[in-house]
Amino acid sequence: MREHCPALASKTYFNYGGQGPLPDPSLEAMVASWRTIQQRGPFTTEVWPFIEQETVRVRQALAALCGVPSHRLALTENVTTGCVLPLWGLPWEPGDELLIGDCEHPGVVAACHELARRQGLTVAVLPVLALCSTTSQADLPAAVLAALEQRLTPRTRLVVLSHLLWNSGAIMPIAAVAQHLCAHARQPWLLVDAAQSMGAIPVEDSAPHADIYAFTGHKWCCGPEGLGGVALSERLLEQAQPTLIGWRSLCHEFSATSSFHRDARRFEVATSCVPLASGLATSLELLAAEGTPPQRLQTMAAGSARLWQGLQSVPGARTLLREPPPAGLVSFTLEDRAGTPRDTAAVVDSLGRQGIWIRRLDQPDCLRACIHITTTNAEIDQLLAALAGMQMQLS
Amino acid sequence: MREHCPALASKTYFNYGGQGPLPDPSLEAMVASWRTIQQRGPFTTEVWPFIEQETVRVRQALAALCGVPSHRLALTENVTTGCVLPLWGLPWEPGDELLIGDCEHPGVVAACHELARRQGLTVAVLPVLALCSTTSQADLPAAVLAALEQRLTPRTRLVVLSHLLWNSGAIMPIAAVAQHLCAHARQPWLLVDAAQSMGAIPVEDSAPHADIYAFTGHKWCCGPEGLGGVALSERLLEQAQPTLIGWRSLCHEFSATSSFHRDARRFEVATSCVPLASGLATSLELLAAEGTPPQRLQTMAAGSARLWQGLQSVPGARTLLREPPPAGLVSFTLEDRAGTPRDTAAVVDSLGRQGIWIRRLDQPDCLRACIHITTTNAEIDQLLAALAGMQMQLS
Repeated sequence: MREHCPALASKTYFNYGGQGPLPDPSLEAMVASWRTIQQRGPFTTEVWPFIEQETVRVRQALAALCGVPSHRLALTENVTTGCVLPLWGLPWEPGDELLIGDCEHPGVVAACHELARRQGLTVAVLPVLALCSTTSQADLPAAVLAALEQRLTPRTRLVVLSHLLWNSGAIMPIAAVAQHLCAHARQPWLLVDAAQSMGAIPVEDSAPHADIYAFTGHKWCCGPEGLGGVALSERLLEQAQPTLIGWRSLCHEFSATSSFHRDARRFEVATSCVPLASGLATSLELLAAEGTPPQRLQTMAAGSARLWQGLQSVPGARTLLREPPPAGLVSFTLEDRAGTPRDTAAVVDSLGRQGIWIRRLDQPDCLRACIHITTTNAEIDQLLAALAGMQMQLS
Repeated sequence: MREHCPALASKTYFNYGGQGPLPDPSLEAMVASWRTIQQRGPFTTEVWPFIEQETVRVRQALAALCGVPSHRLALTENVTTGCVLPLWGLPWEPGDELLIGDCEHPGVVAACHELARRQGLTVAVLPVLALCSTTSQADLPAAVLAALEQRLTPRTRLVVLSHLLWNSGAIMPIAAVAQHLCAHARQPWLLVDAAQSMGAIPVEDSAPHADIYAFTGHKWCCGPEGLGGVALSERLLEQAQPTLIGWRSLCHEFSATSSFHRDARRFEVATSCVPLASGLATSLELLAAEGTPPQRLQTMAAGSARLWQGLQSVPGARTLLREPPPAGLVSFTLEDRAGTPRDTAAVVDSLGRQGIWIRRLDQPDCLRACIHITTTNAEIDQLLAALAGMQMQLS
């Protein structure tokens, strides 16, 4: 995989959680897809079977990874669209409460607040970030469920939680949360932001239990930017009307009085870029050739453990998790000798000038390095050495 | 332009209104864009200026074509998204009426009905199709305005009208309609579906007067599928809240309490495919090199006139317009000697087997051939000969 990715040849890359590298075969697959569409079409009877084939191919691959039948999988442009679009068509009642994890992405949170404003809902916060630093991985599921139980009210109608927290790197017990919500009086819907989990950890035991499990193909799946998907529950497909309606939402695309697709396609809209489907399908095949999702996670976790372990010896470094991370996200802070936090933006810039790319986050203000199966031990050691050097020099 | 398009080499193509051919330089620009992103990024400080450059480049080019400043231009995935998304965040009041032209695309109509259902609005129809066949081009604006005046009520809050009707091929007097609506008590919003007009006819005298002027890059602009835009009025930007909210909608992408962009970016969502912007910008430059929009329209209209004129001599053919079309859409029906309408799907298939591609439409049931600046007289004559041959053989 590593040799296929030109992005990795020229730099030391740790921003997979921002965007994954695009393998050359995936770019070639997109070009071939465009050439086929031009050769047979672009708008002819001869091109439709190819477009259908490429769409079905990526839909099936993503559905299989999610452990759902493909009629529950809608293709989307990005993870935000997958998270937010199904929400607007749900039968909200004024006074319903949205319970949102405190590690959720600002875009999704802002969208929930706008939904609440227009529909007369309330928003409450589910605190999970603090648990990540105080609780061991083994005890985290019970701690999250206890926090959930404490915050659930008779008005709770939706819970929003990421599968793999983008800041701390901890894994949330999605299946257990879903089970817990089922037993609750209102049976709240469960929206899972899977931006960091899809392609990074096995998701087939979690995605089928969420009502909305939304992800993108351009991060851990190493697909092109602009294509993702969302796995939807049967009850959501029954309860939620589409909001952005176009020819792809309709059973009969030529009729304005057509009913909407009963399956997940009701949340697809209109023309999107078919060659991206060819590219993402290729990236998924390349990843599958490197091992099963559990095997790949093992490789990533080994790299994360090496980095986490090394960080314990970097002066002033403090990892957000108290144990080696369960997946590929390794977050940490840096302090000087006086205990003053380093300017994280300056650290990112300084490393960047050395050709090493990590990122900073706002909440909490920290640094994050991502480990994928393409990350080498040499790269991890290079990052550790650069951080140690920076700390020595600055201290 | 024609030599740049492999799609045109292997067939006789008249479906520009479905999807335009992708020029090779545009595909090459996309590949180069992807390679640059991989070389500098994909997620590094070094790649952001390139992504900003390519986004600004296509936004400015589209805004210039629309005759609006670029802060009024939002990039979208397709024309449906551009039409529908801004509608959901407008301050509707129960009982407001949506007045929708009878030639609008089923997707937009279905979306309006869903909006009406949820917000307690009513839907009325503005009949313009019949006018197209009974009125000369010169008299059409007055006829459309008269029809509009007749249907406007004190409750009318939105008018939906395409700029270039996708079935009849007639041009609607957008600027005059906008002016008329301004003088109306409620000053209804004007939503214009520009799917067939953008890239086909000059739009800079119309787009600035609509509240929502939504188009795609993959039809008459010959860009890649999956990228379009929408020009928005100043009042719409003030009145409409975004509905699909992601990091691109927010002034401060890292803060969930951030305000939305005041400009059109509030209707952009999250990660989309930047290389498509490089491709569309290239296609627009290639078209510009062939002449100004009025010059290109003149070329297309000459081709349309040749086809329209030829159709008058094909036995049983009847054009939807009574004069040569004002742009590149030429719609017609075919009847046998007994006056029975031909099965339009069978006609499309039969022509397709000869390598000639036109399409059929449902409402009204008709055939449509599109003429772009790349269409040759030889192609038009080939289509006419094929139609004449088919009519002779079948009669």
